[in-house]
Amino acid sequence: MKAIKDSVHGHVRLGDVAAELVDTPAFQRLRHIKQLSTVRLVYPSANHTRFEHSLGVYHLARSAIDGLGVDDDTAAHVRAAAMLHDVGHGPYGHQTEGIIRRATGRDHDDVRWLLTDADREVCQVLERNGLDPKRVAALIDGESALGPLVSGELDVDRMDYLVRDAHHTGVPYGTVDTGRLVTELRLIGGDGSGASADLVLAEGNVATAESLLVARSLMNAVVYRHHVSRVAGAMLERASERYLDRTGTDVEAFREMADHDLLVALRDRVPALGERIERRDLYKRAVWAGIDEVPAGTVDAGRAEERAAEREIADAVGVDRDAVLVDIPSRPALKESGSAVVVDGVPQRLEDASELVTGLRAAERRRWTLGVYCPAERVDAVAAAARDILGLRATGRPSA
Amino acid sequence: MKAIKDSVHGHVRLGDVAAELVDTPAFQRLRHIKQLSTVRLVYPSANHTRFEHSLGVYHLARSAIDGLGVDDDTAAHVRAAAMLHDVGHGPYGHQTEGIIRRATGRDHDDVRWLLTDADREVCQVLERNGLDPKRVAALIDGESALGPLVSGELDVDRMDYLVRDAHHTGVPYGTVDTGRLVTELRLIGGDGSGASADLVLAEGNVATAESLLVARSLMNAVVYRHHVSRVAGAMLERASERYLDRTGTDVEAFREMADHDLLVALRDRVPALGERIERRDLYKRAVWAGIDEVPAGTVDAGRAEERAAEREIADAVGVDRDAVLVDIPSRPALKESGSAVVVDGVPQRLEDASELVTGLRAAERRRWTLGVYCPAERVDAVAAAARDILGLRATGRPSA
Amino acid sequence: MKAIKDSVHGHVRLGDVAAELVDTPAFQRLRHIKQLSTVRLVYPSANHTRFEHSLGVYHLARSAIDGLGVDDDTAAHVRAAAMLHDVGHGPYGHQTEGIIRRATGRDHDDVRWLLTDADREVCQVLERNGLDPKRVAALIDGESALGPLVSGELDVDRMDYLVRDAHHTGVPYGTVDTGRLVTELRLIGGDGSGASADLVLAEGNVATAESLLVARSLMNAVVYRHHVSRVAGAMLERASERYLDRTGTDVEAFREMADHDLLVALRDRVPALGERIERRDLYKRAVWAGIDEVPAGTVDAGRAEERAAEREIADAVGVDRDAVLVDIPSRPALKESGSAVVVDGVPQRLEDASELVTGLRAAERRRWTLGVYCPAERVDAVAAAARDILGLRATGRPSA
Amino acid sequence: MKAIKDSVHGHVRLGDVAAELVDTPAFQRLRHIKQLSTVRLVYPSANHTRFEHSLGVYHLARSAIDGLGVDDDTAAHVRAAAMLHDVGHGPYGHQTEGIIRRATGRDHDDVRWLLTDADREVCQVLERNGLDPKRVAALIDGESALGPLVSGELDVDRMDYLVRDAHHTGVPYGTVDTGRLVTELRLIGGDGSGASADLVLAEGNVATAESLLVARSLMNAVVYRHHVSRVAGAMLERASERYLDRTGTDVEAFREMADHDLLVALRDRVPALGERIERRDLYKRAVWAGIDEVPAGTVDAGRAEERAAEREIADAVGVDRDAVLVDIPSRPALKESGSAVVVDGVPQRLEDASELVTGLRAAERRRWTLGVYCPAERVDAVAAAARDILGLRATGRPSA
Repeated sequence: MKAIKDSVHGHVRLGDVAAELVDTPAFQRLRHIKQLSTVRLVYPSANHTRFEHSLGVYHLARSAIDGLGVDDDTAAHVRAAAMLHDVGHGPYGHQTEGIIRRATGRDHDDVRWLLTDADREVCQVLERNGLDPKRVAALIDGESALGPLVSGELDVDRMDYLVRDAHHTGVPYGTVDTGRLVTELRLIGGDGSGASADLVLAEGNVATAESLLVARSLMNAVVYRHHVSRVAGAMLERASERYLDRTGTDVEAFREMADHDLLVALRDRVPALGERIERRDLYKRAVWAGIDEVPAGTVDAGRAEERAAEREIADAVGVDRDAVLVDIPSRPALKESGSAVVVDGVPQRLEDASELVTGLRAAERRRWTLGVYCPAERVDAVAAAARDILGLRATGRPSA
Repeated sequence: MKAIKDSVHGHVRLGDVAAELVDTPAFQRLRHIKQLSTVRLVYPSANHTRFEHSLGVYHLARSAIDGLGVDDDTAAHVRAAAMLHDVGHGPYGHQTEGIIRRATGRDHDDVRWLLTDADREVCQVLERNGLDPKRVAALIDGESALGPLVSGELDVDRMDYLVRDAHHTGVPYGTVDTGRLVTELRLIGGDGSGASADLVLAEGNVATAESLLVARSLMNAVVYRHHVSRVAGAMLERASERYLDRTGTDVEAFREMADHDLLVALRDRVPALGERIERRDLYKRAVWAGIDEVPAGTVDAGRAEERAAEREIADAVGVDRDAVLVDIPSRPALKESGSAVVVDGVPQRLEDASELVTGLRAAERRRWTLGVYCPAERVDAVAAAARDILGLRATGRPSA
Repeated sequence: MKAIKDSVHGHVRLGDVAAELVDTPAFQRLRHIKQLSTVRLVYPSANHTRFEHSLGVYHLARSAIDGLGVDDDTAAHVRAAAMLHDVGHGPYGHQTEGIIRRATGRDHDDVRWLLTDADREVCQVLERNGLDPKRVAALIDGESALGPLVSGELDVDRMDYLVRDAHHTGVPYGTVDTGRLVTELRLIGGDGSGASADLVLAEGNVATAESLLVARSLMNAVVYRHHVSRVAGAMLERASERYLDRTGTDVEAFREMADHDLLVALRDRVPALGERIERRDLYKRAVWAGIDEVPAGTVDAGRAEERAAEREIADAVGVDRDAVLVDIPSRPALKESGSAVVVDGVPQRLEDASELVTGLRAAERRRWTLGVYCPAERVDAVAAAARDILGLRATGRPSA
Repeated sequence: MKAIKDSVHGHVRLGDVAAELVDTPAFQRLRHIKQLSTVRLVYPSANHTRFEHSLGVYHLARSAIDGLGVDDDTAAHVRAAAMLHDVGHGPYGHQTEGIIRRATGRDHDDVRWLLTDADREVCQVLERNGLDPKRVAALIDGESALGPLVSGELDVDRMDYLVRDAHHTGVPYGTVDTGRLVTELRLIGGDGSGASADLVLAEGNVATAESLLVARSLMNAVVYRHHVSRVAGAMLERASERYLDRTGTDVEAFREMADHDLLVALRDRVPALGERIERRDLYKRAVWAGIDEVPAGTVDAGRAEERAAEREIADAVGVDRDAVLVDIPSRPALKESGSAVVVDGVPQRLEDASELVTGLRAAERRRWTLGVYCPAERVDAVAAAARDILGLRATGRPSA
């Protein structure tokens, strides 16, 4: 059995199918997609990629599936889905997901089009090994009873990335007990194929489930939504949109790019933004507004409204339209709160079993922030125009 | 400068006073007091002692004090207090603290009697180095503006033990960011002697403060209040009471014992309990009742009422009085929730700045549990008698 | 399957037999035998015990045996042997092994007398589970083809303790790649029962084997033979001898003591040494002589000659006979150099495959040191007398 | 003081000059130069960059310099040199160093041309802060008494990269005790400016120095010279040469490229090799020959002779000239063996104080290997031609 050394899990042993999947172009491409995209501009050690993360997810899935008592064929499909769960990502991962979704209607976990493409090695490897690409793709999309193990509230994806992101940023908040989590997962009900069964944590694991939720919340605050990473991310998204406009590049071709392709492309074709990203010469925050300052309609604005506001602010200040970026995150949510855990013999939603969930939701709400970014020298003018145009309510808070 | 290798902080460098304090009998004795007393019966790697913990607290205090801008004399007193904050512990630390408090009125952080005793080396070392033992003792007791750094909501004691206990148990939940915490502490107000100043976390650290609270809460659930450790602790406390009764040992002499002394003494003089503790042949849970099952008066019962109930249950079942242990923890509290953090330029209590605190308090309340323990073969009889005598309300929950 | 949390290996899962063995008095006693005895007086975090070490050795043995292709019965015996390999240790482990050997002829890895004693639970557990106590004991003694996995040049004992001792002292030199080592072990020849087969490392592992040797050598220099630990160890051995003389305690009873028993016994019955050990008020080095300063006959002296020299020196200086300790280690050796590794398809001894072995042997020889210890105030007088009586050659080296 | 989170050292605090240097384009470019270039194709977690490595070297230099007692001005120059020691690297670091050296005569640690270029921000920052760029450049080149701290046998560069590379590959062999090393460095002789003084390790550190040597040797064997990384490196060097030939790119411009620039350039302009590198579709080893198989003249061959042999082999087999790569490493050496350590009061070279050095040198010699690489389907033909043309001696060793 082939083994790959991993800085988080030690040795990751690969079964035969996994060893073949590793060598496909679709999987090798993940070496060139960083796990945390622009976070490395804040935490310089955070250069890990979706390649080793995918191996880690496979490793945890393999451990978890061993204890769930499913049949061999189901287990093999789950392992393949764990390996391949991120092959649908575009360059810079989540940072370009909105662009791709708006153009194609597909999120990164919809990979049917890719896995079932008989011209691709990844499809050929699956079929050669007796696996059904459609079934693998469905698992990646969270479907069927075992889908939630790959993509759900208690998925091995989350277990791996929380630990891995903590390890590589140096921030200690993501340290969940993966050893315990994969051991304590249970499949309740069903017929061995995993159909109609529910994935839960065994009795005595409310604190284990809470730790996952808490780790996610603290990592959100300190890492995933750090303002420097958000500024760089907004610049990258805007530059990518401009790149697509200017070059007429097809979105499907864009999706196949890797981080290095996009970095070079943006620098060469959208230098006003691309050179700044490459050199970390970033825009500054003109506005950094909490949810209570923002009109409800604006909180729910889509990309079109963001861009309209950007244009309006830029025109009001008299700067280039790429010099103003409006960044409105989606409403706060805590997907993990729906995970199930057995309490006193009965499976319950974590939000029913734990009083922490309400507090964490409120903390997520408090941390929600709308940002407007621009070059340092225009911060004051842009702030004034943006507050006016976005209809932000005055608060006593000092500005960013 | 002398350096000691520590498994948590790497090299701990000792200043001259600290190097002298290490060699005193009062400090060397801490080598023989385990940090987590009976927790090692659940987590076998948790054998660390208050000796290395005290060095760690000194190490963090030294870092923190460097950034607070206090005068040299104050800093020297704080460092000495950090070193010596645990010399007041009896054998098995918190496990015997109730016994000592009831007999002497002193908790472990009241060490004036010890530090000001001119016959003791520790007093002599302090005075020889121009330090005032009374002032050091006051800091250990949390007094004066810098007392909270040694003993308070944001103290370096807590920062060290959360990380150290996580490291040694192998449980990942105590990993707080000590590097950031000591860097972000500020002293607001005051005159450089630290008088009348307040210790707060600088702007931008709500999540940092929350992480401390969350770490404490999860470690409570999984480590500090693990039922096996509580059973062993209750056995140890009862055996110690019996030992004092039987041998007429003076409580002051008892307090000076170390773990190994007590372990041998209990085995030899109270073998019915002492041999079981040594061999980890522990009592089992007959009752394990949540706070809603327990009458309010019982929740607030003192040791005398606990012992009365123990006797009554034992007599009802017809077993030896040492065969029934009633363990009623104090009401749930979260001392850390009072820590101060600057938000929008204004220091706030964490409980006002973070919605998490309410959730964590509720979780603490949910985890509060009354236990009744006895030998395995009497569990059913003791459970019935105990529920009746303690007036526990029936719930749908399965028994322990 | 029961799991125990371990600070080194994470979760250690116990099979049914192992779970029963853990609860025997012989195994629980290991909670009270520290792995590194007096090393904790130098490295204060080194409080780990032979209990968790034994669990770690079991864990590695279980991984290793999975890849060796032996029959189930053999595997079960090897796992039991790994669990129980240290139950033969006396108090303070290796520190009292000489005393016990001289009185009984048995080393700690000769445990036939213990495992085959039908009155002991450990024997009963083995037999109840269909395991032969004699066969388990033989494996612990390094016999049969798989004995070397438990006690040999490439044993899992060594793999665990190097990593564990590094983790707990904080010294980074013992970090061997246990994951790779257990994966790369092979059994060459034999019939599945492991008989007449040889344990080797697979092709491509010369550096892996070297790393084990190097880790051992560096840990020897910095941890295992640190002079402070050696001084305390010599005091402990002498105090134990005196204790046996004075109290007439039977050596078999002595062997059954745990660390805390001996610490209390020595303090109470041999206070001149015992109180010093407890308080770390240690003797100092009067002589610290390299192998080239010492006559060959003296290098090979036994305990009787050491004691004769001690008496002669003490009498010459006019101090109490317990005030002079002569500490002559056995000749330097590197057991690991005999481990076998496949090179170009052929199993070779590491000493033939690696030029490093010669260098490491020379380093071990250079580090060999004879010590004479005494109270600080008699160092000069004892040094002069000892150099004369032991016939040490003058060198240009400064004295200790 | 600004702090940056680092996964190896925790918080790295930056002084004012360092904080300004971080923001220069020359330093930001290091974010895009991976520390271990092609090693990530073997150890997928090894994606760390020269950016965080440079911060780590600065961090260690700052600690070390504090204990050396040099004047403030000298210390400031040393800290700046530590920060900037790697700004001279081309894309993929050492992998393109030969190309740049042959064209410009400069190695990566000759950065006078860069630091003294008044048009560059890095020069301006140094001068604005009263630092002499020439003096900083001289330190980076190992000159003056403190040059060896930045670039020498005991330099902080090596201390950081051994620990960092171990952390990120997951291989445990590089774990040297940086805390101890920087504490134990001493400057002997000199006048406070560091002139005419020698950098040594204090008494009692032979094992400390050995650990550095051993870590380097084991990391060489397992990481730095792993054959997969060497194959990819040889492909990259050849592709880069071809790129320069084809595009006429100036070497100075080539040197300013970052990893992503080169990866895109090679794929687009030298697709036969560049696409393979990007997709990890690597050549295989046709020859893998030890030093005793290779004629002495061939061991010392330069790049011109390598290329001539490549052409001759390719022509003999009838394949494209880029389909054969000959990879002859420089003769084995152990620079660290010259480090100085105080033994018995006298500074000695480590090679005189430690018998290990001879063994490690022999191991380096044994591990020296000449490689010839080509596409998998031509391995047999290329092997035969290469052995003949390179005049390799037959051995009994199986081929790669």
